[in-house]
Amino acid sequence: MSAYQDSKLYRIRHSAAHIMAQAMLERFPEAKIAIGPPIEDGFYYDFDLPRPINEEDLQWVENRMKAIIGGDHAFDCREVSPEEALALFKDQPYKVELINDLVSGRVDDNGSPIAEPAERITIYTQDTFMDLCRGPHVANTRDINPDAVSITFKMPAGAYWRGDENRQQLTRIYGTAWESPEELQDYLHRLEEAKRRDHRIVGERLGLFTFSSLVGKGLPLWKPKGTILRDTLERWLRQVQIDNGYEPVVTPHIGNLNLYKTSGHYPYYKDSQYAPIVVDDEEFLLRPMNCPHHIMIYKSEMRSYRDLPVRYAEFGTVYRYEQSGELHGLTRVRGFTVDDAHLFVTPDQLLEEFISAVKLTQYVFNTLGLTDFRARVGIRDPESDKYVGDDVLWTQATDAILQACSQLNLPHTVEAGEAAFYGPKLDFIFRDVLKRNWQLGTVQVDYNLPERFELEYVADDNTRQRPIMIHRAPFGSVERFVGIIIEHFNGMFPAWLAPVQALLIPITDRNVEYAEGVAAALKAAGIRVEIDKSKARMGAKIAAGREQNVPWMLIMGDRDAAAGAVSVRLRTDEDLGAMPLPQFIEMASGVIESKSLSLS
Amino acid sequence: MSAYQDSKLYRIRHSAAHIMAQAMLERFPEAKIAIGPPIEDGFYYDFDLPRPINEEDLQWVENRMKAIIGGDHAFDCREVSPEEALALFKDQPYKVELINDLVSGRVDDNGSPIAEPAERITIYTQDTFMDLCRGPHVANTRDINPDAVSITFKMPAGAYWRGDENRQQLTRIYGTAWESPEELQDYLHRLEEAKRRDHRIVGERLGLFTFSSLVGKGLPLWKPKGTILRDTLERWLRQVQIDNGYEPVVTPHIGNLNLYKTSGHYPYYKDSQYAPIVVDDEEFLLRPMNCPHHIMIYKSEMRSYRDLPVRYAEFGTVYRYEQSGELHGLTRVRGFTVDDAHLFVTPDQLLEEFISAVKLTQYVFNTLGLTDFRARVGIRDPESDKYVGDDVLWTQATDAILQACSQLNLPHTVEAGEAAFYGPKLDFIFRDVLKRNWQLGTVQVDYNLPERFELEYVADDNTRQRPIMIHRAPFGSVERFVGIIIEHFNGMFPAWLAPVQALLIPITDRNVEYAEGVAAALKAAGIRVEIDKSKARMGAKIAAGREQNVPWMLIMGDRDAAAGAVSVRLRTDEDLGAMPLPQFIEMASGVIESKSLSLS
Repeated sequence: MSAYQDSKLYRIRHSAAHIMAQAMLERFPEAKIAIGPPIEDGFYYDFDLPRPINEEDLQWVENRMKAIIGGDHAFDCREVSPEEALALFKDQPYKVELINDLVSGRVDDNGSPIAEPAERITIYTQDTFMDLCRGPHVANTRDINPDAVSITFKMPAGAYWRGDENRQQLTRIYGTAWESPEELQDYLHRLEEAKRRDHRIVGERLGLFTFSSLVGKGLPLWKPKGTILRDTLERWLRQVQIDNGYEPVVTPHIGNLNLYKTSGHYPYYKDSQYAPIVVDDEEFLLRPMNCPHHIMIYKSEMRSYRDLPVRYAEFGTVYRYEQSGELHGLTRVRGFTVDDAHLFVTPDQLLEEFISAVKLTQYVFNTLGLTDFRARVGIRDPESDKYVGDDVLWTQATDAILQACSQLNLPHTVEAGEAAFYGPKLDFIFRDVLKRNWQLGTVQVDYNLPERFELEYVADDNTRQRPIMIHRAPFGSVERFVGIIIEHFNGMFPAWLAPVQALLIPITDRNVEYAEGVAAALKAAGIRVEIDKSKARMGAKIAAGREQNVPWMLIMGDRDAAAGAVSVRLRTDEDLGAMPLPQFIEMASGVIESKSLSLS
Repeated sequence: MSAYQDSKLYRIRHSAAHIMAQAMLERFPEAKIAIGPPIEDGFYYDFDLPRPINEEDLQWVENRMKAIIGGDHAFDCREVSPEEALALFKDQPYKVELINDLVSGRVDDNGSPIAEPAERITIYTQDTFMDLCRGPHVANTRDINPDAVSITFKMPAGAYWRGDENRQQLTRIYGTAWESPEELQDYLHRLEEAKRRDHRIVGERLGLFTFSSLVGKGLPLWKPKGTILRDTLERWLRQVQIDNGYEPVVTPHIGNLNLYKTSGHYPYYKDSQYAPIVVDDEEFLLRPMNCPHHIMIYKSEMRSYRDLPVRYAEFGTVYRYEQSGELHGLTRVRGFTVDDAHLFVTPDQLLEEFISAVKLTQYVFNTLGLTDFRARVGIRDPESDKYVGDDVLWTQATDAILQACSQLNLPHTVEAGEAAFYGPKLDFIFRDVLKRNWQLGTVQVDYNLPERFELEYVADDNTRQRPIMIHRAPFGSVERFVGIIIEHFNGMFPAWLAPVQALLIPITDRNVEYAEGVAAALKAAGIRVEIDKSKARMGAKIAAGREQNVPWMLIMGDRDAAAGAVSVRLRTDEDLGAMPLPQFIEMASGVIESKSLSLS
């Protein structure tokens, strides 16, 4: 976010939030205002309103915002004493609460917990509106293009005062603002497109997965076509990992509570875990993490430095509690499969192994054509003491990560405070075709778990040493990853991932037998096929195939049958015309084997 | 068991149990006797003893048994009134309880629950000993060879009166008896061999799996080599299933309690399930079965008769509670993976689909060289009313199963009362090289779940019809299956399953580089290799390879390196001599691809 916070767009959006609050107070004079930050692609403001908001209100507020923007008002900043601030905001109880917390040092001025006690309070004013705020803002409303601002209302999903569901529920109004009307239109278009590509809708249309309230919320059931997609990804990544010296393991989906107490996941992550299962006089957890299980395999043998690095990989399904309101298709679920691996390395091996793990992730993304990604390097917040472990080790690990980025020419940002409490990490941020950012895989350095589990290896001087762990997962969650690529590709997967690769369309019943022979030949070549033997007309069959995003539609009439040919239509509607069957097989096999993004 | 119950061996063992009880009563006059049935390979008798039994007692009893056998005593049978029986056994409280239950019809004379009330009680007597018993026995102790009888004592694992852990714990003495001393020796030898082949010991030696008390009892952790073994089996079976029209699906390991209430698994199998997990205001179960999940996928779409049969396959891990005393390596665990599939078929398709499912299982076993198997057809007990569903459907299903057996020439026994409550079934009983019987896969017909979940399809006359389900799993449990084949093969798996297929043994350091080239060539051919680069001598390296049951050990010295050859030693110690590398690759690849049991 750091570059974003320095940008003009950030100031525009921050200012637009204030302007929206001003307009809202004009529409609802009794409204109480909470907070209103800029966010990715826009801003919001939370209000405590005397009545539900409606479309007419929203239209009025948006029009009024444009008028305020046109009014040529400066954004003025001044500092006041806490007493003055309390007097200024005496009618705004949420602001009063924030001022008191600022003064006592319980929050910073973003409302985030724990800061230094504030002696002066910063206030921004434009026109008739005044807000607690440390900025930055544009200098004058004229710096905002009124035709590049738009607001919307979404049903509040957990918009509670200070995010606490026991406190007042607030109405959150979202807005977006850009430098030009064209950018706004482009953004709104992308929003529309994102709705159209919603993986829940595309997944339903393509028959990839389903949910059942009787099975449980947030627990996807993968239908055959979705299973082909995820299995193909898994089998490929598994082989890539084996080729890179990883060893697959298989471990159970539950573990004794003491395992997670030892690892520290319990009670640290208690709120995101399922309640324990009582078995005889023991308690078990549905595992929230795979690492402790892999650690117990490491620990089952005495290890020598000659055995290291040990790299255990598992497509390990984990279960984490999410509030039902937070669940969303495949991207926010309660059970998901991590393409997990844990590397146990000596300090000497850390850099090389870290680089290899990052390289493997780059290879995975590039192969899938997901080329617009960067790394976010999370390092310690120098002010905080929540981190465990030796300073020297932190420095070594952070250096290793930064060195890896530079050796690999990996675009990256460094963000203080984004480290895990047990070590620095690198997260991959992928930007999809709709310019949305998604956090995908991660590579993390961990000194903590080896310590907690007292892991050892015998060094070449015969002393017992502690290995370092690397946690890494290119996809992160297979479910989430599939959800993301469904939207990125709009269901038009590269041919090697398509559940059905070729749809065979006999023009008449006479051609069904020929189609069956073609199907057998394609299957023998490892191509996934379906035949449409229905009575529908050719045009309807082609439309149905396109609807299913089948890469190749092979139309076959009498002439094709006589010539041993197929007429090839792509899902993009491109017509490749008739070609001898062996030629099609060679072309399709080449596309599939090379994992090409093109279809011919 | 039916053929066994008619056999001479069964009568010998039944009689030997009585003789053992006689000898025990002579040794422990105050002992109370419980029951003593013949079992597979032998017999046992449960006693309530005044003091713990020791080796000396056991020796005395065995000697005394031989003396009784030599005494030429007839086995006499007579029927008495219940009053007479109670008077005869007045000093034997367990027998008194049994007599009362027999009279009230609570048990049959094997002590199994629920029978017709008995009006007459059958008693067998030999020499000084008398027992409640319906036989059959040998005519005279002289029909038993005293040198073909042996007894042992094992720590009683749950030997409670009537199997009820709240009642008296008893001392169970096991015996075995055969027709000839040679058969006894052969049996004792097989027992010894079984101990040596114990999959827990072999699995440890080969590094296949481990357990951790911190993870939990009965929850195996598959190490890399064991994972190769199970993955290879799984991937092969998955492909065989796809080739046979099955479609893989993936479903979660938990489900809402209501799912299992609908299926009837809860509370019916409550005792073998883990306690529910509370999530918000819902309860979830770690799934004990995969079927309800597959059913919800079936139910997610409206089905037409044209879509059927639908065949969903999943290597689905399930969790079932077992008492910790019952746990045993991989063969009795608390979490295991079923190579599950559920077929949804029309009545017309039942026979054909059942036959295909049985054929697939036969193919699987035969490919693995597990050729000594038979089918056990479980049909309804005509006397019982525990079964659900229409008589006509039961008859149809039973006919289909029997017809399948006869069409496939599958050796089978028909056992009344062995059906599931929801339909008849076929279980595969595999006899391993040590002549032990293992129940493996199953194919079951189910009318019940389609009814409970109100499954439907649209028939060709547009009416809504109910499909029939077939449950089937060739391995049954992957864990248990691996445990069994470890013992069957004594860890010497067919080459295609061996975790390491070739161990490369450079004779000196000079030959390491050549070995690395050979390793690369073998890997490129898909062969799993390891190189032993240690300083150990060649003989020690070969011994280590044999210890790991590696199929092929490739020894390479200067001469091999110069000739581009490898000297091939089999794990059986057979020496194939030097051969050009390409020749070895061709041979090994052929063995692996054909899944041959031989190594050359």
